[in-house]
Amino acid sequence: MTDISEFDAATAVAPDGSAVIIDGWDINGNANGGYLMALAGRAMRDASDRPDPITVTAHYLAPGKPGPVQIDSTIVKAGRRFATMSAQMHTGGKPIMQLIGAFGDLADAKSFEHVGSAPPDLPPFEQCLPRDRAQGTADVALSDRIDVRLNPEHVGYLRGERTGDAEMAGWFAFHDGRPIDTLALLMICDAFPPAVFNLDMPAGWVPTVEYTVHVRAVPAPGPLMCVFRTHFVSSGFLNEDGEVWDSTGRLVAQSRQLGLTPLL
Amino acid sequence: MTDISEFDAATAVAPDGSAVIIDGWDINGNANGGYLMALAGRAMRDASDRPDPITVTAHYLAPGKPGPVQIDSTIVKAGRRFATMSAQMHTGGKPIMQLIGAFGDLADAKSFEHVGSAPPDLPPFEQCLPRDRAQGTADVALSDRIDVRLNPEHVGYLRGERTGDAEMAGWFAFHDGRPIDTLALLMICDAFPPAVFNLDMPAGWVPTVEYTVHVRAVPAPGPLMCVFRTHFVSSGFLNEDGEVWDSTGRLVAQSRQLGLTPLL
Repeated sequence: MTDISEFDAATAVAPDGSAVIIDGWDINGNANGGYLMALAGRAMRDASDRPDPITVTAHYLAPGKPGPVQIDSTIVKAGRRFATMSAQMHTGGKPIMQLIGAFGDLADAKSFEHVGSAPPDLPPFEQCLPRDRAQGTADVALSDRIDVRLNPEHVGYLRGERTGDAEMAGWFAFHDGRPIDTLALLMICDAFPPAVFNLDMPAGWVPTVEYTVHVRAVPAPGPLMCVFRTHFVSSGFLNEDGEVWDSTGRLVAQSRQLGLTPLL
Repeated sequence: MTDISEFDAATAVAPDGSAVIIDGWDINGNANGGYLMALAGRAMRDASDRPDPITVTAHYLAPGKPGPVQIDSTIVKAGRRFATMSAQMHTGGKPIMQLIGAFGDLADAKSFEHVGSAPPDLPPFEQCLPRDRAQGTADVALSDRIDVRLNPEHVGYLRGERTGDAEMAGWFAFHDGRPIDTLALLMICDAFPPAVFNLDMPAGWVPTVEYTVHVRAVPAPGPLMCVFRTHFVSSGFLNEDGEVWDSTGRLVAQSRQLGLTPLL
């Protein structure tokens, strides 16, 4: 037993930017893209000396394999409200990710409010289906760390019964009960099965080209409600847009990624 | 008379990355953020030696004023399908924008297709309202270059009659008839009045923190149909999501920006 959570241990970064991609946060041996963003995001956050990621964008250049990496962070501008950071994660002279982000303090900022959407309509946490580690040919080792509970209406794809609607919704928590902070939100938006698994499309991995997370609030305690939707698949590309809501029904993050689908 | 279009002249970049922010692409003296992305995007595209921006993200660090700037572009990775670029626009030692982008070739890529949305329902180009240069206290000099025609149902905000729905739609063309290519799409997604002008909110400028464009196809000839929507305003931040459709009804770009609203 240790006092440090699995997520905190797996995103540990030394002051010089050296870090380790920890085995067990992967799918089929490749580290989850959200985990990689959280790892790099923690290095950037530390270097920025601000408490919260506000918006982070990552380009994925090579798969992340377990082992040592270096994250070089540069302060582009340290402003009053934000510190803007540029960063690269690399290993053995080879870039794994290139990032840009703004970091600041999300606490206690009040403005005009508008909510033009609502949390996904989900059965209670216990009535949703755990995302198993073994899924067909995929080995989702990540599922031993994170407790993703999928809307039962969205998991028919596992039996070849697709909804035809590119939506994937469910709950998120850490298995070890770690509270969800703004850093963890960087991971969560890339931790669900792709929404396109519910379309009648060629099966396979959906590699991410670009992934952006906007952190909109500090989450209240408890599991989060998450929903991901793909609106456009064309010319080998797809978008996936995510919304993450906390237990009080407040939006805490929005995400979008540009992913790849096989060319015909 | 010259043979070069206004947009091509305004986005000219020397091989060493030196360029000029041209007067007349501004609102109240600050260069339009979309124009700045197109200018930097052209420098990045040239340095990448690929024909099309695929996804570009910009962080805005200081207003762009007319005059000379330097755009430093770095090839992070030149891969088979994409070249990933990092760039900074700066002047006098001060950063104006920090960018990251992937460049490639959008032509002739065929894949599984899915379209989960449709172009905005717009009256014909001629029946939509030109976005005038003079708008209340704003001097939209940009409107002398670009021909934005707004859905008449969305322009009541100019008379204080807001729809209450954070949506702004209309047509886009260049006044001088320049064809719209993938580079111009980088500008178009930031060239409309903010969608939140149709909410009952404090008036004022909506500065952009982060702006990402996904270019999804090479546009067919003719004006483009554009729609922008804001779903979430909270804690001083808002999102604005854009879709741009060509004359054949094909989605050619998606955008999202994180903007600022006044704190209370």
